[in-house]
Amino acid sequence: MDAATVMARCDALQEHTEEPGKLTRRFATPALERATDAVEGWMREAGLTTRRDAVRNLFGRYEGARDDAPAFLLGSHLDSVPDGGRYDGPLGVLTALAVVERFAARGERLPFALEVCAFSDEESVRYGTTYLGSSAIAGAFGDDWLDRVDRDGIAMRDALRAVGGDPDAVASCARDPADTVGWLELHIEQGPALEAEGLPIGVVTGIQAQVRHRWEIRGQAGHAGTTPMAGRRDALAAGASLLLAVEEIGRGMSDLVATVGIIDAEPGAMNVIPGRVTLTTDIRHPDDVRLGAALDDVDGAAAAIAAERGVTISREELSGDPSVPCDARLRAVLHDAVEAEGFPARDLASGAGHDAAALARICPVAMLFLRCEGGISHNPAENVDELDVAIALDVMERALIDLGARP
Amino acid sequence: MDAATVMARCDALQEHTEEPGKLTRRFATPALERATDAVEGWMREAGLTTRRDAVRNLFGRYEGARDDAPAFLLGSHLDSVPDGGRYDGPLGVLTALAVVERFAARGERLPFALEVCAFSDEESVRYGTTYLGSSAIAGAFGDDWLDRVDRDGIAMRDALRAVGGDPDAVASCARDPADTVGWLELHIEQGPALEAEGLPIGVVTGIQAQVRHRWEIRGQAGHAGTTPMAGRRDALAAGASLLLAVEEIGRGMSDLVATVGIIDAEPGAMNVIPGRVTLTTDIRHPDDVRLGAALDDVDGAAAAIAAERGVTISREELSGDPSVPCDARLRAVLHDAVEAEGFPARDLASGAGHDAAALARICPVAMLFLRCEGGISHNPAENVDELDVAIALDVMERALIDLGARP
Repeated sequence: MDAATVMARCDALQEHTEEPGKLTRRFATPALERATDAVEGWMREAGLTTRRDAVRNLFGRYEGARDDAPAFLLGSHLDSVPDGGRYDGPLGVLTALAVVERFAARGERLPFALEVCAFSDEESVRYGTTYLGSSAIAGAFGDDWLDRVDRDGIAMRDALRAVGGDPDAVASCARDPADTVGWLELHIEQGPALEAEGLPIGVVTGIQAQVRHRWEIRGQAGHAGTTPMAGRRDALAAGASLLLAVEEIGRGMSDLVATVGIIDAEPGAMNVIPGRVTLTTDIRHPDDVRLGAALDDVDGAAAAIAAERGVTISREELSGDPSVPCDARLRAVLHDAVEAEGFPARDLASGAGHDAAALARICPVAMLFLRCEGGISHNPAENVDELDVAIALDVMERALIDLGARP
Repeated sequence: MDAATVMARCDALQEHTEEPGKLTRRFATPALERATDAVEGWMREAGLTTRRDAVRNLFGRYEGARDDAPAFLLGSHLDSVPDGGRYDGPLGVLTALAVVERFAARGERLPFALEVCAFSDEESVRYGTTYLGSSAIAGAFGDDWLDRVDRDGIAMRDALRAVGGDPDAVASCARDPADTVGWLELHIEQGPALEAEGLPIGVVTGIQAQVRHRWEIRGQAGHAGTTPMAGRRDALAAGASLLLAVEEIGRGMSDLVATVGIIDAEPGAMNVIPGRVTLTTDIRHPDDVRLGAALDDVDGAAAAIAAERGVTISREELSGDPSVPCDARLRAVLHDAVEAEGFPARDLASGAGHDAAALARICPVAMLFLRCEGGISHNPAENVDELDVAIALDVMERALIDLGARP
């Protein structure tokens, strides 16, 4: 299996989208099911035994030297953000499949089975969950997740059932840690470092801490034409002030990133001063303590804005994930493999969250980052070089062989 | 007909809403149709001849001394903003009906017919039109309006057809100016002046100029975790800056009001930096020239923000209405009527736009403002005093008699 096939498959999966002309593939949608069906077909062609679990994760298994050996997991997710790129997720699934196909093609068995994982939700776009697919595997599916509703009022429970999932069997997704050797994921870097240094591939040291909140601002709705500026308690203007404070705090601490990605103003009419606003914040830092300090700064800014503008501001934590280090032994194996392919082994912290953060609960985890054009991701302009993908396949194959040879 | 009936009918119309527990009644919805049906029933009970036109305006006609005499129009609109109040619009329709019922009850005929108008859209919430119902009457229905789509992708043409309207017959709504004597509307003040001065009613001098725009900001979408703060071109942060600039310009010029009522960020995910934002501005001033100067200030701020943040900002004018003076003769009649009822005739400029702005194209227009609690409007807390409504009915009745007696 070569890189050209991986590239062609990443292209082909683009047709499975919720929005014509854009790649949007959220959890528990027909578009995601069609993409997963396509990958399952390729898995079967490669001779893997496939399985879908209760949250619509897909697994393709290639047995080890003895049947029912513990499995080394490889893969990524197949869902996307709205109007996203074709490589974020699918590249990890399809490179994992291509590497396993190499072993299958020559009938080479390792001491462990290989399982290619295609998770049904990592981006958490639809229900504000974090790492839904891999959390289910890790036995960490959230207690309240099934009852959450999306923007259209559809509960996860019903959405899952509509695509053939089984909300009553979520607990059955959990893997036994004793049967799980490790996790390896290739992912586009989604940042500019590798490109800037002229390197195709990097070894991830760990995943930074991140915390997400939904904020609610309550002011006073009123008529846009008759309410003097002086008497207003405009919830949206307060939201804009909060947003700019978050941005300023983000700019003020090195390695901190802070983003408002969603904002909604109610009632949402041109001639009505908004009385209620909700917005989300996503704040990340490699260091747990410094992340906490940044969040304190945001709280302080929110309190000052509430007092100054006569509005109330409250927040709800949607997710909070401490930093997750990658496994030292797996990192060493990856270092060796990258160097054996002729490249310096560049260490990188992950600015983004990944399924490894969930899977670290049940097994050692490791990640490789692939150079991507301009560092651009979550965007249709996402791009990678086929030659880099070829290098990644060789690194992954070599690392698995090396792992199989070590005790 | 007494004020208590008017109050009870305003209460009763609240049940016709799109959202349980809130009063939301947008153009061309089943909720608006049910409210209009209720009013039509009351019109028929009063002996008026009713008629619905192609855009679902409702008219109830009481003939004058001779059949087919030109008509004096009275009324307001039945649509509402989302989560609005029960008096904005319906109070004008139901006081007009109550006054006409008085004439009908005693069989008194005026030299002109009386037509109670209940317009199907004044708030322009759904399609961003301005004074849709009265514009249709005034022969000023916008060329592109039927093709506009709402947030759910429903074209006005289809929405109208679904409630029994006729998009192909919009031109037939236009009234002949020769058959139109004038327009009188009672409306809640939606501002604090009358309450502050202890007056139940005021005479409107005119409607201020207003201009509405939709702004589009294009930046660069990107991953919230991996895009350093320094390299971002965050369209939503630019939108927040623009919003606060609009607010500051509004605060900086006396009598100016400037509001951002709608904002949308795309793609709209917690972990994606927004690449595109749209927002609306609604800016008003009693003086056309000063309004133009304020808009120039907003344009200057937008250009500075675009340059500083590396985004593009463009705007589209959705509506632009110069100030509309009320008719001097009708104002004089209303002055006399208010004073005859024992109150000083207080002149007031209208901060809000009203159907009079559209109807001024075909006839002399006049308005009365009624004191409302706290000046609050576009809000469920909207409230008026029944005693004030009783005064308004007497003033309106007296003014019509006076108009009938004058040549």
